[in-house]
Amino acid sequence: MFKKVLIANRGEIALRVISACRELGIRTVAVYSEADRNSLHVRFADEAICIGPPRSAESYLNVPAVISAAEIADVDAIHPGYGLLSENANFAEVCRASNIKFIGPRPEVTRMMGEKSTARQTMKAANVPILPGSDGVIGSVEEALQWAADVRYPVILKAVAGGGGRGMRIVRSADELPGLYNQASTEALNAFGNGDLYMEKFIERPRHIEFQVLADEHGNVMSLGERECSIQRRHQKLIEEAPSLQITPEIRTRLGGVIERSLREIGYWNAGTIEFLMDEDGEIYFIEMNTRIQVEHPVTELITGIDLVKAQLRIASGEKLPDIVPARPTINGHAIECRINAEHPEKFTPSAGKITAWNVPGGNGVRVDTNQYQEGVVPPYYDSMIAKVICHGKDREEAMNRMQRALSQFVVEGIHTTIPLQQKIFSDPDFRKGDFDTKFMERFFEKEAARKKAEAENEPTGA
Amino acid sequence: MFKKVLIANRGEIALRVISACRELGIRTVAVYSEADRNSLHVRFADEAICIGPPRSAESYLNVPAVISAAEIADVDAIHPGYGLLSENANFAEVCRASNIKFIGPRPEVTRMMGEKSTARQTMKAANVPILPGSDGVIGSVEEALQWAADVRYPVILKAVAGGGGRGMRIVRSADELPGLYNQASTEALNAFGNGDLYMEKFIERPRHIEFQVLADEHGNVMSLGERECSIQRRHQKLIEEAPSLQITPEIRTRLGGVIERSLREIGYWNAGTIEFLMDEDGEIYFIEMNTRIQVEHPVTELITGIDLVKAQLRIASGEKLPDIVPARPTINGHAIECRINAEHPEKFTPSAGKITAWNVPGGNGVRVDTNQYQEGVVPPYYDSMIAKVICHGKDREEAMNRMQRALSQFVVEGIHTTIPLQQKIFSDPDFRKGDFDTKFMERFFEKEAARKKAEAENEPTGA
Repeated sequence: MFKKVLIANRGEIALRVISACRELGIRTVAVYSEADRNSLHVRFADEAICIGPPRSAESYLNVPAVISAAEIADVDAIHPGYGLLSENANFAEVCRASNIKFIGPRPEVTRMMGEKSTARQTMKAANVPILPGSDGVIGSVEEALQWAADVRYPVILKAVAGGGGRGMRIVRSADELPGLYNQASTEALNAFGNGDLYMEKFIERPRHIEFQVLADEHGNVMSLGERECSIQRRHQKLIEEAPSLQITPEIRTRLGGVIERSLREIGYWNAGTIEFLMDEDGEIYFIEMNTRIQVEHPVTELITGIDLVKAQLRIASGEKLPDIVPARPTINGHAIECRINAEHPEKFTPSAGKITAWNVPGGNGVRVDTNQYQEGVVPPYYDSMIAKVICHGKDREEAMNRMQRALSQFVVEGIHTTIPLQQKIFSDPDFRKGDFDTKFMERFFEKEAARKKAEAENEPTGA
Repeated sequence: MFKKVLIANRGEIALRVISACRELGIRTVAVYSEADRNSLHVRFADEAICIGPPRSAESYLNVPAVISAAEIADVDAIHPGYGLLSENANFAEVCRASNIKFIGPRPEVTRMMGEKSTARQTMKAANVPILPGSDGVIGSVEEALQWAADVRYPVILKAVAGGGGRGMRIVRSADELPGLYNQASTEALNAFGNGDLYMEKFIERPRHIEFQVLADEHGNVMSLGERECSIQRRHQKLIEEAPSLQITPEIRTRLGGVIERSLREIGYWNAGTIEFLMDEDGEIYFIEMNTRIQVEHPVTELITGIDLVKAQLRIASGEKLPDIVPARPTINGHAIECRINAEHPEKFTPSAGKITAWNVPGGNGVRVDTNQYQEGVVPPYYDSMIAKVICHGKDREEAMNRMQRALSQFVVEGIHTTIPLQQKIFSDPDFRKGDFDTKFMERFFEKEAARKKAEAENEPTGA
């Protein structure tokens, strides 16, 4: 096992990795920007090295600074956490060249899975179902009609050169295809100087479902089941849970098997997550792979009993998966996570500043992962997530009730947080029933706006 | 289910019960003394009523004040927590007379189990092994010799009127019995004006092992296995764990069965704990029953997945045990609890005052139950326990390593706590091996004193 590990990250995940190292008897080295001098990850690491000014580009993303710190501290390995350098294949290569173990997959694999089309082709070749797409320019209305008939409506036309919704049309039947094709192509030509279109199967109300895997460096791969992450706002997950109500034991076993074979084929190792969309018929399509630990990994830890960060460290040190996870875990209850962000809960603008009062909830079935404390400061330079509350119960109902209880006991003063928003979500009847998809938050805000409007109209006009 | 429950307690257990109620959709009423006005249990309850001045006798133990609060708030039931009024049969009777459900066993049963000799006789009649004792005066040396020969040496002579160790002698063989008998009797006569002695089997190095039970009001009883609580200082538990290394599945099943039958016979209901001593040969003897929830109940919760406080509430509302715990739980890993007391860690004098810095540990496998917060005050009037840290791991090794990690991240400033002491215990080789008994802390302090003396002697004399 490693003697000393550098954690190339900040925030709660830095502290999470430090905790795992300490439980394994590994010495830890924190790196920090000038803005994070008083962070708990700096306090609780065995050593800490300042690597630059507040801006990430000059500190946490500064590869030479991180590598210098690792060399000065003489570490065996670097844990990159999530975000920042965690999916940077170049960084992993520099680690290798510096004889420092990068705790994650090989850079070649990271690079392969980082390219969307290569990842799609790789997974398709390994029999993982992928979202049908033309994978190239659709040259004519006739070709588009043919392609759409093959994958079934609805489909979506997208500009090859596009972005921001321009040159994009959802097509729900063959009748409307010719007209929409011409509109999209013209719009794309005007916007990007290129009228070329490609096509994808369109899912009206997709669910985001992802599978956690662990793989060692000896060819052993294990799927640890799924997480449901459909509660998103602007593609940012707000609430995650495991297991998913949509995944039967049969699907879990079958898809898990396909994933295990595919990752064995590509020589994947360490922790990873395969992200899927599920359509209204329960069909599931690969969208991308994250070659690192995820923010929402605790929900899997709580229902499987496996410490995923410890597993990452043990795998990177050469241990075999059967020694880390002797048997495929059974699912123990239900877990839900809320990402607590320092944001105005309605405007979603970041809310930096000093935390003047702070009480984290505790007690039975409540886990909090945070790097914050009373009198600490949330700097304006980084991701706005300041804590994760993860509740575990014997079933989804108990986990939800526990989350409501925990959120009601989470005191944060001095900054705004998403706690009031999440409290409302946990009272939403559709959320309670599990009836949601990635468009849930749009509908939720519409309902909220309608409710407020009605309230305003019903207000008495006089004093 | 109850609509509204009053919590007749303070500290972490008051908040623990409030949390359970909230998760079950029950409204809560806190009561508090003037010293606890700013406590979290007051903040997080739906309603709060001040019941008197700081001293417990005038507030938390003031039955008319508690009952008045319950009547004013119009509650269905009262949860007594542990300590205070929890084993006061008179209080339970007053509740009954006031048409308020007391969440605990019937007062008749509380009273029966509260009398040591009645409890012993009751358990003995139900075939629960009890610590052999003469259960009455031993009238002569001859009788003492006969009795000791029956139960085997060592035995202990105790003054019937006694206390504080006077008139007490440990006897290890028949040879020394006559002399020690006369010494003890004379000493007792001089000290208490009564030379009468009784005898008990003496265990040189007992372990304290207790069994958690749940029983409903319909005759269903379930043993939920044991806790090991031998790490005590002056009969105060400092560290508890579950399961015990000494209890095999066979013993657990056999003793659990005996306990279940005995409690069914006496019509016990709600949560309860049967305390045993285990001798060096693994023989186990009933010592007493606690007819309430215990401080250390979370270790059982973590390894069984059962929320014991929710179970108490559901049982008291009339639910049947098979609906609450459908199947006998299997043991999931290992859990250890540290009671964090506001005390000087070496002198053990209470340390009241304002908490100027406070960071509770979190992350994977760490549960903290506390009513404290930064800038809060630990009043001098009550029990010194300010928090419980409970760590859960896949085995005892992981739970211990996690506890060391958690304690290292528990920041408390402004008052002294037992954290430094507990950190040392978790590095003690005998503790790590599980080689301990209720005399462990005596030996631990002797080792510490010897170590300090040696250090002082080895210190250089000059500057």
